[in-house]
Amino acid sequence: MENEVKDEFKASSDGSICGFDSLYRLLKENLKPQHLEEVSRLLHGLNCGKALNTVTLPESAAALSLEHGFDLQAFSFHADKEQLREPRIVRVGLIQNSIALPTNAPFLDQKRAILEKLRPIIDAAGASGVNILCLQETWMMPFAFCTREKTWCEFAELVDGESTKFLKSFAVKYNMVIISPILERDINHGEVMWNTAVVIGNHGNIIGKHRKNHIPRVGDFNESTYYMEGNTGHPVFETAYGKIAINICYGRHHPLNWLAFGLNGAEIVFNPSATVGELSEPMWPIEARNAAIANSYFVASINRVGTEIFPNPFTSGNGKPAHADFGHFYGSSHFSAPDASCTPSLSRNQDGLIIADMDLNLCRQYKDKWVFQMTARYDLYADLLARYVKPDFEPQVISDPLLHKKSL
Amino acid sequence: MENEVKDEFKASSDGSICGFDSLYRLLKENLKPQHLEEVSRLLHGLNCGKALNTVTLPESAAALSLEHGFDLQAFSFHADKEQLREPRIVRVGLIQNSIALPTNAPFLDQKRAILEKLRPIIDAAGASGVNILCLQETWMMPFAFCTREKTWCEFAELVDGESTKFLKSFAVKYNMVIISPILERDINHGEVMWNTAVVIGNHGNIIGKHRKNHIPRVGDFNESTYYMEGNTGHPVFETAYGKIAINICYGRHHPLNWLAFGLNGAEIVFNPSATVGELSEPMWPIEARNAAIANSYFVASINRVGTEIFPNPFTSGNGKPAHADFGHFYGSSHFSAPDASCTPSLSRNQDGLIIADMDLNLCRQYKDKWVFQMTARYDLYADLLARYVKPDFEPQVISDPLLHKKSL
Repeated sequence: MENEVKDEFKASSDGSICGFDSLYRLLKENLKPQHLEEVSRLLHGLNCGKALNTVTLPESAAALSLEHGFDLQAFSFHADKEQLREPRIVRVGLIQNSIALPTNAPFLDQKRAILEKLRPIIDAAGASGVNILCLQETWMMPFAFCTREKTWCEFAELVDGESTKFLKSFAVKYNMVIISPILERDINHGEVMWNTAVVIGNHGNIIGKHRKNHIPRVGDFNESTYYMEGNTGHPVFETAYGKIAINICYGRHHPLNWLAFGLNGAEIVFNPSATVGELSEPMWPIEARNAAIANSYFVASINRVGTEIFPNPFTSGNGKPAHADFGHFYGSSHFSAPDASCTPSLSRNQDGLIIADMDLNLCRQYKDKWVFQMTARYDLYADLLARYVKPDFEPQVISDPLLHKKSL
Repeated sequence: MENEVKDEFKASSDGSICGFDSLYRLLKENLKPQHLEEVSRLLHGLNCGKALNTVTLPESAAALSLEHGFDLQAFSFHADKEQLREPRIVRVGLIQNSIALPTNAPFLDQKRAILEKLRPIIDAAGASGVNILCLQETWMMPFAFCTREKTWCEFAELVDGESTKFLKSFAVKYNMVIISPILERDINHGEVMWNTAVVIGNHGNIIGKHRKNHIPRVGDFNESTYYMEGNTGHPVFETAYGKIAINICYGRHHPLNWLAFGLNGAEIVFNPSATVGELSEPMWPIEARNAAIANSYFVASINRVGTEIFPNPFTSGNGKPAHADFGHFYGSSHFSAPDASCTPSLSRNQDGLIIADMDLNLCRQYKDKWVFQMTARYDLYADLLARYVKPDFEPQVISDPLLHKKSL
């Protein structure tokens, strides 16, 4: 299989970093400095001498990373100093992780083991002074939707359920906003299930929730068997640390979804995901960076890690034999900025915490510079979409009248 | 200046290719084959063993490239064989070029010199059997809009003017559709000017025109001084070789513009551009590839080459001294496909012709696979945009009620 990591690039058995762990590390280890500089200018948008700086974190965070074997990286984005506004620097953290126990372990053990696994990573974020932390999509369970088995619905939780309670204590302890993407069970609507991001304020209160707008039907992503398209619109949450929104997983393929969070005023849009190498890896940085550029906001991309193997083999609708694994979740969590720059990514193979300092003033600076919001001609598109959704829509096509004339 | 090519990367004086001529060549020359393979998988989307093949062109085309000193590259994209449809393979060519004479030469000489410069490159496309050829934005003149001087309006032409007549003969000779982006003068509407792509059919007839929808107001791109936002909607041209559309230059920053061509059924969208390194180079591959992925069509990106120096110094609105040059137009023309793959780019420094064979069946294959067109929920966005364009629009914001509570 293509998505298997080639021998040379396999992570060593002790989980330490080796070989092809991330694109940036591969290039850094193999290119001369002056070539790396030029490649970084293009690939990471580090134009105009505005280098991305690394940030030194407290020793306690580094110690947790070492002890528990997770990747830890931190960067800061550049923004200009303004005369009439103070900088609004926010420290944002993203956690990517594999599951903690095999999927055939008792469900209660699996749930508890994930919480215990995350504890030191969240502590590292707290020790690092992270203001807003986001976990990966349905972080409290294996990504079992490939199986189409309904037993996994047991993992679904209320918005103020076990996972939220667990995270609330960290939110209060570290004065931190936490975004918690879960599989939600909605008992006020007859046990409907949703793919939901719960936004926990820095006082431990629930600010609100957003439900995933776009549901995939591709490869092993049989998610439409479990939950439906969200009914919460495109909310932007005004938190103590800025205006944030959440575009869950497959929603990143829809430019209109990104746009809507921008129109509602988002300054950071989180994209908690679970996606595998063979399907989407080359798209992964493209879509996030495009959204950051087009909408003049920061994007925070999170993907889970590892290969999850399920008790019963399932088919993938691709003519190949039934198999029990969901391919390789390639991690590679990273940040993108409105100025087209982006950070290197976390490991493809290892749990990790990536942190970035961002001055939210950069969003308006790039709106003022490129004025996409003023040259967008939204009225044209409001009109087009209103016509398009009608069953009798006629596309604007100009046919060559000589189409069927024989060539000389 | 950041956008100046560093010593080590300068093209040699005879125009031959050396040093940092393109990102792909830099990586190819400096990475081990197995690393290059992995980097290409991510950067060029060459996933799943579907390698991008190079195409061998006729010797006559290679000879023209050698004689006239332009870069020549050709690739073919992979598509699956279908059972109920024959492949629909189209050969597409893109030309990038610098101007032919200094900008202080008499205008008539400049115009004629550009035509003469393009002749052998178009002949190479014809000799290579190109079906659809696209030139760069306002190819028939220097990109003088930085100056805000009105004298350059002299270069504007009628849709069926001198440039169109010149290209019609090639269209007939080579049975080729040609897209000709010009500065248009509209004498039927009181000398209004537009930034227009004229679509010439393979029998030399004018199929129609599209006028640039979105006009920049950034850096030296003072184009709104010269022409206004287009009034031709988002037409798709049904030609002998497939359904094509043109998203001119700055329109590539607007995902809605890309979307509209997709909704109207485009299979290839051309993006003839003129853009400089300091401003946009890291965005260049991102936006094109994102559009190809999100809309399940091919994208053909063209950018002019070289540094154009104007007779009178002008300011750039950036607090720096007046200067006479428009920065470096970095070429880098390339193709992107619906499967997230893309070709390497033409030279950053040299005129060039890039050719790709593409099976248009790939568009529907990717619509069937990812079903973005079915999971897009256009009704949500039609409603949102209709509300957004009203002056009293209220964004969907959920504020933390504890926003102003002091932390413990």
